[in-house]
Amino acid sequence: MSKPIEVRNPRTGKYDYVIIPPPPKLLAQQCNRLRRSQNLWLQLGVQGRIEILLTWKRAILSVRDKLIDALVADTGRLSISILEVDLFLASIDRWCGLAPTLLQVTEKGTSIPFIQVQQSVAPYQLVGAITPWNFPLLLSTIDAIPALLAGCAVIVKPSEITPRFVAPLMSAVNSVPRLRDVLTFIEGARETGVELIENVDLVCFTGGVATGQLVAEAAARRFIPAFLELSGKDPAIVLRSANIDLATSAILWGAVMNSGQSCLSIERIYVAESIFEQFVKNLVAKAEALQLAYPKVEDGELGPIIAQKQAVVIDEHLRDAIEKGAVVHCGGEVEQLGGGWWCNPTVLTQVDHSMKVMSEETFGPIMPIMPFSSVRDAIVLANDSMYGLSAAVFAGTEAEALEVAQYIEAGAISINDAALTGIMHEAEENSFKFSGLGGSRMGSASIKRFLRQKAYLIKTQSIPDPWWF
Amino acid sequence: MSKPIEVRNPRTGKYDYVIIPPPPKLLAQQCNRLRRSQNLWLQLGVQGRIEILLTWKRAILSVRDKLIDALVADTGRLSISILEVDLFLASIDRWCGLAPTLLQVTEKGTSIPFIQVQQSVAPYQLVGAITPWNFPLLLSTIDAIPALLAGCAVIVKPSEITPRFVAPLMSAVNSVPRLRDVLTFIEGARETGVELIENVDLVCFTGGVATGQLVAEAAARRFIPAFLELSGKDPAIVLRSANIDLATSAILWGAVMNSGQSCLSIERIYVAESIFEQFVKNLVAKAEALQLAYPKVEDGELGPIIAQKQAVVIDEHLRDAIEKGAVVHCGGEVEQLGGGWWCNPTVLTQVDHSMKVMSEETFGPIMPIMPFSSVRDAIVLANDSMYGLSAAVFAGTEAEALEVAQYIEAGAISINDAALTGIMHEAEENSFKFSGLGGSRMGSASIKRFLRQKAYLIKTQSIPDPWWF
Repeated sequence: MSKPIEVRNPRTGKYDYVIIPPPPKLLAQQCNRLRRSQNLWLQLGVQGRIEILLTWKRAILSVRDKLIDALVADTGRLSISILEVDLFLASIDRWCGLAPTLLQVTEKGTSIPFIQVQQSVAPYQLVGAITPWNFPLLLSTIDAIPALLAGCAVIVKPSEITPRFVAPLMSAVNSVPRLRDVLTFIEGARETGVELIENVDLVCFTGGVATGQLVAEAAARRFIPAFLELSGKDPAIVLRSANIDLATSAILWGAVMNSGQSCLSIERIYVAESIFEQFVKNLVAKAEALQLAYPKVEDGELGPIIAQKQAVVIDEHLRDAIEKGAVVHCGGEVEQLGGGWWCNPTVLTQVDHSMKVMSEETFGPIMPIMPFSSVRDAIVLANDSMYGLSAAVFAGTEAEALEVAQYIEAGAISINDAALTGIMHEAEENSFKFSGLGGSRMGSASIKRFLRQKAYLIKTQSIPDPWWF
Repeated sequence: MSKPIEVRNPRTGKYDYVIIPPPPKLLAQQCNRLRRSQNLWLQLGVQGRIEILLTWKRAILSVRDKLIDALVADTGRLSISILEVDLFLASIDRWCGLAPTLLQVTEKGTSIPFIQVQQSVAPYQLVGAITPWNFPLLLSTIDAIPALLAGCAVIVKPSEITPRFVAPLMSAVNSVPRLRDVLTFIEGARETGVELIENVDLVCFTGGVATGQLVAEAAARRFIPAFLELSGKDPAIVLRSANIDLATSAILWGAVMNSGQSCLSIERIYVAESIFEQFVKNLVAKAEALQLAYPKVEDGELGPIIAQKQAVVIDEHLRDAIEKGAVVHCGGEVEQLGGGWWCNPTVLTQVDHSMKVMSEETFGPIMPIMPFSSVRDAIVLANDSMYGLSAAVFAGTEAEALEVAQYIEAGAISINDAALTGIMHEAEENSFKFSGLGGSRMGSASIKRFLRQKAYLIKTQSIPDPWWF
């Protein structure tokens, strides 16, 4: 019934894996099955759910190698695949530690003496997550784990570009009786995502802006909450007082980590005029020292471009910039090696905001740098974007950097480092502008997205007769 | 350019007031003007904004009588109009007291030793509120006050059915220099609301489900947050152990307060079989003792039906119920007196869920009562609704009532009283099902709807060289 989807290997370019999306009827049945089990899951209580998630964690450990192999085949890179599995396992522990406190019923003091308030929470029944290909495992579970602990049933549709990890992950799910009744990962592309939204009570979407807007509208038509984590074009501002060596190391890391295939990667760099030349020289030297992870997966630092369509985008941004006068200091092209698409760390100068590489999300290891003459200009440039995910500011002192950071329109700002939201999950942040919509996915606020506040207002003594007419 | 809208007086039925909606271009200009002033408003700091709101409060006190007169003309009832003004004034004080704590920058402990987090907030620039006619003043300011304190500019479009209070309220706004730059109330109907959504960064809507769904979709198309507070069909469950006298007094108050024109009014009553007869008798006796506020506004307890279209709905629900076999114990019809529409407190039995009076929002002083034989049945009946705003449970002990309340699908449940959310603003609650969408308007969570979380992630010491490839 449903058409099979062929999956491309990012290192070989070969289509060597196939997924078959569920027909709409089967998907609806699966959602009904999850819904039917949700009440029992909720009745287990948070301690019961924690025990089951920890059982799942042990089951995942027993398929750890298979999971890593699948992620390596999905993404073509090794160490981040290992890191994905380990951070995923750590996130189960982290949420199991936080959940009991976040879910408890609390009594609240009130200003009316004869009314007492008990504050409790009620989870949405079925949460759907539609997730991207850049961190296939981490981003398909980042919402699922707190949602499960909150008491929801969860259905996840990972990207059809990186679906190989689903089989080993589902084998771990299926080995845990209670869990398999309330958690499932399904395979499919856009149509399956559209169908999923029709069957859930809340949707989390991580991906591009265009699709994110469609998800928001589909959710509004169904009158369900949508939590969107979308694209970024994160700027870094380097003030004159900054430590150049520290700044270039951090920005390089923030820009080329995972070959730039990260929503929170640094994609625009603004450097004070007086240190511009030195900064560029220092950054280029460090960028040139990095190697592609080719031909062997164990080689170098930069994996292939995972999605073929993204290789086209990166290539287009580079050509557009060069055509408009950008100077390439290193890297500068998307090349095909052994059937995969690759891009070396690329430093560009003589760039401006008329170029796609400065205005649209590139999602590659590209570092375009512009000088600025005043801090005010730097802030205007950093804010001249439809995106507002995160940013970075470098200065000689924390205070000087914070002074600038307060004017940056973004939810998370790294000070004297880059992309810290990638490793720090405790800060609450909202996406600004078109980078997202809805509550913070980071910090303890994350689990609250899956819960409705429910208040019991208890009359504790006799109120004078009806007094409000 | 824009067509004038004639406004009906709910006591006389005469169209004796006119509003002229702003043409779309003027509305856009007004929004631009508010936007331009928002930054200055934010720069004032929370203490500066508090001072200006307290100046406004003094200005409102000087037009208090005019405001009350306008509300009396808008709604036809006296004591609630006075109460609206006084509760509005009290809410300014309440929010001015809460805001400093809720808006401060906080430092957060983190699990990563070399990263420190400062958590701050950034308001949306321009908040739009579209508000209903049942509590014209209270509901048009319930979102505006916390939004202003958060640092937003605010534009409010009250209902075209009750717009007379806008003139005296705006005269108080215009007497406060800084405030008039960031707060305005505009007159208009549906078209003006549609236009407003196109010009703001966040929309709050209080009103019916059908319009609420349109607002949600329009907001999603513009990719802005929408906070919806919609209809209810609140059930009351009276267990066998309940104090009947207490329950009937509370339910009567909850059902007929403001002539039932309240989203949180009790609209369905489920009573344990064994006490059913006694309950009905007791409730009817109390209902019959209430009087219409007619012919003089100072008379009785129940004001007129404010919106003519609502009189049609109430009449339709009553006819439908009676046709299907409902028994009328008192009241039972919508009558015209002196050009206005009125309805006496109405108790119905022999009702079931096939009747509109048990399934659709009536918004009148109607109390349909059904007996139940088991607590389980009562819960099923209470939850058999597309709405999930609030509810009430009556029992001999708090514990017994709470046991039942936990199964009710609603955001706020009054225990041994009814409609307590009308007087208690400190409890956080989300609307379930079609009764709303988005964060809690009650409790300190309310102000958070207008703020984006912004985190500063500060690297406090040297991190080992790039470690995540």
